[in-house]
Amino acid sequence: MKTLWQHCHVASMAQGAYSIIEDAAIVTSGALIEWIGPRDQVPAGDYAELHDLAGAWVTPGLIDCHTHTVFGGNRSGEFEQRLQGVSYAEIAAAGGGIASTVRATRAASEDELFDSARKRLKSLLRDGVTSVEIKSGYGLDLASERKILRVVRRLGAELPVSVRSTCLAAHALPPEYAERADDYIEHICAEMLPALAAEGLVDAVDAFCEYLAFSPEQVERVFIAAQKLGLPVKLHAEQLSSLHGSSLAARYHALSADHLEFMTEEDAIAMAKAGTVAVLLPGAFYFLRETQLPPMDALRKHGVKIAVASDLNPGTSPALSLRLMLNMACTCFRMTPEEALAGVTLHAATALGMERTHGSLEVGKVADFVAWQIDRPADLAYWLGGDLEKRVVRHGVEVDL
Amino acid sequence: MKTLWQHCHVASMAQGAYSIIEDAAIVTSGALIEWIGPRDQVPAGDYAELHDLAGAWVTPGLIDCHTHTVFGGNRSGEFEQRLQGVSYAEIAAAGGGIASTVRATRAASEDELFDSARKRLKSLLRDGVTSVEIKSGYGLDLASERKILRVVRRLGAELPVSVRSTCLAAHALPPEYAERADDYIEHICAEMLPALAAEGLVDAVDAFCEYLAFSPEQVERVFIAAQKLGLPVKLHAEQLSSLHGSSLAARYHALSADHLEFMTEEDAIAMAKAGTVAVLLPGAFYFLRETQLPPMDALRKHGVKIAVASDLNPGTSPALSLRLMLNMACTCFRMTPEEALAGVTLHAATALGMERTHGSLEVGKVADFVAWQIDRPADLAYWLGGDLEKRVVRHGVEVDL
Ligand SMILES: [Zn+2]
Ligand SMILES: [Zn+2]
Repeated sequence: MKTLWQHCHVASMAQGAYSIIEDAAIVTSGALIEWIGPRDQVPAGDYAELHDLAGAWVTPGLIDCHTHTVFGGNRSGEFEQRLQGVSYAEIAAAGGGIASTVRATRAASEDELFDSARKRLKSLLRDGVTSVEIKSGYGLDLASERKILRVVRRLGAELPVSVRSTCLAAHALPPEYAERADDYIEHICAEMLPALAAEGLVDAVDAFCEYLAFSPEQVERVFIAAQKLGLPVKLHAEQLSSLHGSSLAARYHALSADHLEFMTEEDAIAMAKAGTVAVLLPGAFYFLRETQLPPMDALRKHGVKIAVASDLNPGTSPALSLRLMLNMACTCFRMTPEEALAGVTLHAATALGMERTHGSLEVGKVADFVAWQIDRPADLAYWLGGDLEKRVVRHGVEVDL
Repeated sequence: MKTLWQHCHVASMAQGAYSIIEDAAIVTSGALIEWIGPRDQVPAGDYAELHDLAGAWVTPGLIDCHTHTVFGGNRSGEFEQRLQGVSYAEIAAAGGGIASTVRATRAASEDELFDSARKRLKSLLRDGVTSVEIKSGYGLDLASERKILRVVRRLGAELPVSVRSTCLAAHALPPEYAERADDYIEHICAEMLPALAAEGLVDAVDAFCEYLAFSPEQVERVFIAAQKLGLPVKLHAEQLSSLHGSSLAARYHALSADHLEFMTEEDAIAMAKAGTVAVLLPGAFYFLRETQLPPMDALRKHGVKIAVASDLNPGTSPALSLRLMLNMACTCFRMTPEEALAGVTLHAATALGMERTHGSLEVGKVADFVAWQIDRPADLAYWLGGDLEKRVVRHGVEVDL
């Protein structure tokens, strides 16, 4: 069944770059794009449906390539305490920080986790997201990580969004393994990853490389275990200090290295060679009031692909809109609106290994797109929060938001 | 007709302070609150309607007390140029900046202005706003300011929101008066304000006191003209430099002085004495990447009432969510979530002279409230962007968002 979508302009991202078709039309056939181009060249045909997009700007469906959407509780209480003058050390001593999210996540039932994550994911979807990556990492034992990853799969099955599942068991050291980080890494490699992968719950493996999390050597063991299982890797790297995790990620041909405020030019060169995407997370930068900017010039100079994501998580980026991250990428990181838009479509797809089917509007790709009632594509990065009028199409079918 | 709303908690802001009722109930009669308190003390009665709020947290409807919602065009093109490296001077030389918004606003028909402002206002409403102030100030001649203010009145008539209209003719110098600022001020005082007030289009008068706008002496002439017409005044003051506009505003018992990053402790003392509200605008601070924080300690020490608003405008704060401003007030200005919430309810009402009827949930006040599906009131400041599940009630009637 063929459908014609017309009376629109398109920012297609075709052939790996920002590109525009004014007064365009799109022909979809089932879930795929069959034709896209200037309206006056639409192939004659028998269209089962005709949609007038009323002058909208059409972009690929947004792809949020780094989120921690599934967690128990939230940390607004800590957010408030911090602002009332309680120190981070006091909060940590009282069992706060990531430890409190791990406790709440372990204590929650699968249904409870699903219900709270579903609300957050719906907020992302209402702002134009059609694909999302969701990490585990607040369970930190086999049963709890499995519970999270099952919720991730269920979110993909029940909501109109393509979900990629990432196992981030190496997110933090669970209390049972205090002072025994190497043992926990061994447990991840020998038990958790093989079991979760065998159950079909894992699309990629991630780790947190930082002085307060895991060392490059420990991360490398996780990468080796992942690759034995045929799973691609990703890495949280260079957020708070420079351990060259991003170069390590590049050596393992990671899909992406994420955060990267403290990365060096050498890291950028390594990532560019490996095709590892730089995923920038301006929400965490903003929320933590960081001042060290990622090295935009080095990333651009060496041609590293730059994605932008929400990092939706309870501790450092409780972000419920990927479009707001476009604004923060521009305002805080001085990305251009075109770079930012490519960062939540084209390059975000590559960061998830979905680039052959998603991330741009081209013949043969999946028909995931958003028709925005805006004056120009830069509007998506310009408006601050709120809700823009839009229609969202996923797999060729309009989504009811 | 009496309606009972129950199964909720309330952050009521009663008696001028943040206050909480757990397991509460609200009885509305027509547009007003007839009773509010703990659910087990609800008066027996014949309720025409019963609403189960499903454990929501109820706050007063949010009040956005400083916006420039009505304007022609937008400035996303300039936003993009700046990020592509074009200097502010080059943009201004090419007719950009506020001059471009004035041209676009003058050129737009009343219907065009209404349609674009309506979309923006709907975005604010969908995030919980039930009262809003909207300023003129992009017309800068009698006919164009009238056109804007008529649109403001029409927005109030057609959308489910209480609208206060502020004449900001003294926003910038129109090109016809280049080098003749005093003449323009004279025109405002002698012609524009009397005419617009006579037409019932003006609830308050505002001006922009800044070295690149109008001097304190010029502002004072506008204030005198406003008071002759019986209109309360407000002022954009101390955003970029310290001219003591906020002390001037206090001398004229202004409803509010707004922005205030560069105010002094003496200004704070004057405002506290006069009861002039400090309206902080974190969206503009964020969007312009300012570093000078408003003097929070001085404001607190002297008991100045602090409101928070979106400053929705095309040049310096294209903010479409007041709830996002709560986060920015906390993250950027280190306000507490309680202060921020009081700033968009209680104190925002005072900044608009609506404090007798709006801004808190108390017997006899208007039944404008939002029932948020959140865990605790701090969530409103904690979540970053997106859309929270909610029900909005205005004048005792649930609003269809
Ligand atoms: Zn993360
Ligand atoms: Zn303003």
